[in-house]
Amino acid sequence: MLKKSDKDQIFEKIYNSYKLFVEKQLKVFNGNRTPYTVYSPIKYILSAGGKRFRPILLLLACEAVGGKLSEAIYAAVAIEMLHNFTLIHDDVMDHAELRRGRLTIHKKWDENTAILAGDEMIAQSYKVLLKTKSSALKPVLHVYTDALVQVCEGQGLDKEFESKKNVSLADYFKMISKKTGRVISASTEIGGIVGGGSKKQLIALRKYGECFGKAFQIMDDLLDVVGITKQFGKKIGGDIKEGKKTYLFIKAMEKVRGSDRKFLLSISPSVKLSEVFVNRTKKIYFQSGAIAEAKKEILKNTRKAQQAIDLLPSSNAKSLLMWLPRQFLERTF
Amino acid sequence: MLKKSDKDQIFEKIYNSYKLFVEKQLKVFNGNRTPYTVYSPIKYILSAGGKRFRPILLLLACEAVGGKLSEAIYAAVAIEMLHNFTLIHDDVMDHAELRRGRLTIHKKWDENTAILAGDEMIAQSYKVLLKTKSSALKPVLHVYTDALVQVCEGQGLDKEFESKKNVSLADYFKMISKKTGRVISASTEIGGIVGGGSKKQLIALRKYGECFGKAFQIMDDLLDVVGITKQFGKKIGGDIKEGKKTYLFIKAMEKVRGSDRKFLLSISPSVKLSEVFVNRTKKIYFQSGAIAEAKKEILKNTRKAQQAIDLLPSSNAKSLLMWLPRQFLERTF
Repeated sequence: MLKKSDKDQIFEKIYNSYKLFVEKQLKVFNGNRTPYTVYSPIKYILSAGGKRFRPILLLLACEAVGGKLSEAIYAAVAIEMLHNFTLIHDDVMDHAELRRGRLTIHKKWDENTAILAGDEMIAQSYKVLLKTKSSALKPVLHVYTDALVQVCEGQGLDKEFESKKNVSLADYFKMISKKTGRVISASTEIGGIVGGGSKKQLIALRKYGECFGKAFQIMDDLLDVVGITKQFGKKIGGDIKEGKKTYLFIKAMEKVRGSDRKFLLSISPSVKLSEVFVNRTKKIYFQSGAIAEAKKEILKNTRKAQQAIDLLPSSNAKSLLMWLPRQFLERTF
Repeated sequence: MLKKSDKDQIFEKIYNSYKLFVEKQLKVFNGNRTPYTVYSPIKYILSAGGKRFRPILLLLACEAVGGKLSEAIYAAVAIEMLHNFTLIHDDVMDHAELRRGRLTIHKKWDENTAILAGDEMIAQSYKVLLKTKSSALKPVLHVYTDALVQVCEGQGLDKEFESKKNVSLADYFKMISKKTGRVISASTEIGGIVGGGSKKQLIALRKYGECFGKAFQIMDDLLDVVGITKQFGKKIGGDIKEGKKTYLFIKAMEKVRGSDRKFLLSISPSVKLSEVFVNRTKKIYFQSGAIAEAKKEILKNTRKAQQAIDLLPSSNAKSLLMWLPRQFLERTF
C-alpha cells in the first residue's frame, strides 16, 4: 500500500489533469468576443483560475457510474459558468472587493458591467449545457434549472439574514443547502444522469454533493475568520463586516452571554466596522468554542459524503470522490 | 364587411381574451412565496399589467401553424418572464425610476433586490419552459437561450453606445435587433415550433417578429420624446438623459449642423441634464425631420412584418397577427 503522501500526490495529479480538461473547454471564452462590455469581464473571471471542483465532481460522478467524460464535459463547463455567475452577482450584493486574489468585476469595471456579465454568463451556460446528448438532456435541464432557482433563493435568504438577529441553526442549514449545497449536489447528480446511473446511484451522488456542500460552506465561513487573504483569495473578515449569519456567528450566539453577546448583537451591515471590531469577533468565535464546533461539523459531513457513495462500484473515479472532500477541506492544494 | 372600428373592437376583444389567458398563468406568482426578498418584487412586476404582447404573439404563432394553445402556454409564460427579467435589470442599469407607471424595483426596494429578483426570474422562466411537451423542447430551448444571449449582448451594445459619439444607423439596427428584436422574433419562432410549423413557416414567423421588433423599438424611441408619462408608463426624456443612441439621435445627427450638432454632441450620461436641455433636444428632433423619418421607418417595418407571414394559411390567428403591428404601433389600446 502507498504511503498517504504518495497517494495524495497521485490523486492531486489526477485531479489536476481533470482541471486542465475543464480549463481547455473554458478557453473558448478567451478570445476577443464582442460586445467587450459583456465578454471581457467573463473572460477575466473565467481565466482567474479557481479550483474548478464543481465541474470535476460532475465528471467524476459520470465516470463513477460508468459514463464517458466526453458526454459530461458540456454540463461540467455549464456548471462552472453557473457558479461563476453567482460569484459575480453575489460580489456586487456583498460589496466584495477581492475574488481569487483579484479585483471583483464591479470593482475593476462597475456594477452595471457586473450585472450584465452575470446575466450573459447564465445565458452562455445554458447554451453550453444544450450540447449534452439528447437522451439525458431533459432530466439534466431539470436539475440544472433547480440549482439556479435554489442558488438565487439561498442568496435571498443570506441577504435577509443579514438584518435578522434570531437566525437559528436550522435556518442557516436551509440557507446554505440552497446557496451552496444545491449547485454542488446538482453537479454530482447531473454527472450521474449523463453517465446513465441508476436511481439509487443518483440519490447517492446527490446526497454526497449535499454533505460535501454543507462541509464546504462551513469551511468557507471558517476561512473568513482564520484564513489568509493570499490563499483564500478574498478579504478576511468580509462576512463579519457584512453582518452575515455564519455557522460561527450562530454557534457563538448560542454559547456567549453578557457583554460578548451584546457585542455580537450590535453587528449590523449598515455600520462601518473597524479592524478592532473584526478582531474582537474572531476572539469571541475562538473562546466560545464556535471554531472547534465548526471543525467537528465539517468532519461529520465529510464522512457522511463518503458514506453516501459507498454503494458505487469500485473505480478510480469513486476513489477520487472518496478522497476529495477531506483533502479539499484541509485546503492543502 | 365590417367597418374598421368594428373590426378593431372585435380584435381588441380577442386580444384581451388571450391576455387574460396569459395572466391567469402568471398568477401562480401571486402567492406569498418565500424568500420574500426574492419573490415579492417578482409578484410586484408580474402583477403590474403590461401589454403581454410577446406571449400573445407566441400563442398566435402557434395557432397560425395549426398548433394548440395548451401546448404553447408554458413557453408563452416563460417569454413574458424573460422580458420582465430584462426590464428589471435594464432599469437598474439605466437608472429608470418608473415602469408601467409604478416605481421600478430598485427604487421601491434597492439594487440588490432588483439584481436578485431578475436572476430568479430567469431561473423560474426556464422552469416553466421545461413544461413544454418533449418533442418540441430541444429546438424551443435553443431559440429561447439564443434570445437570452442576444438580449444581454444588445443591452451591452446599448450601454457601450452611450459613451460613443459615432454610432451609425447600421450599429443601431444591430443593437436593437439583439436588444428588442430577438425576444420578439423568438416568441413567434417558438410559437411556430411548438405548433409544428414547417421550416418555411418558421422562417416567416421569425422574420415577422424581427420586423415587428424593429418597428416596436423605433416607436419606443419616439415615445420617449412625444409620449405622455401616464400612457407610456415611463418618464419621458429618459433616453435623452442617459445619452442613448436612439433612432432619433442618429437621424438628427445625420441632418443637423452648426450649434444644434454641437449641442447634440454635448449629451453625455455623466452630465445631469435639465428639462431645458431635454426640450431643446426634442425641438431638434422635430425640426431636423428625425421624427418624421422615424414614423416612416415604423410604417415600413410594419408592412414588412405583415408581408412576411402572407404565406401562412388563413386563420383567425393569422388575421390577428396581421392586424396587431399596425394597431400596436399606434398604441390605441
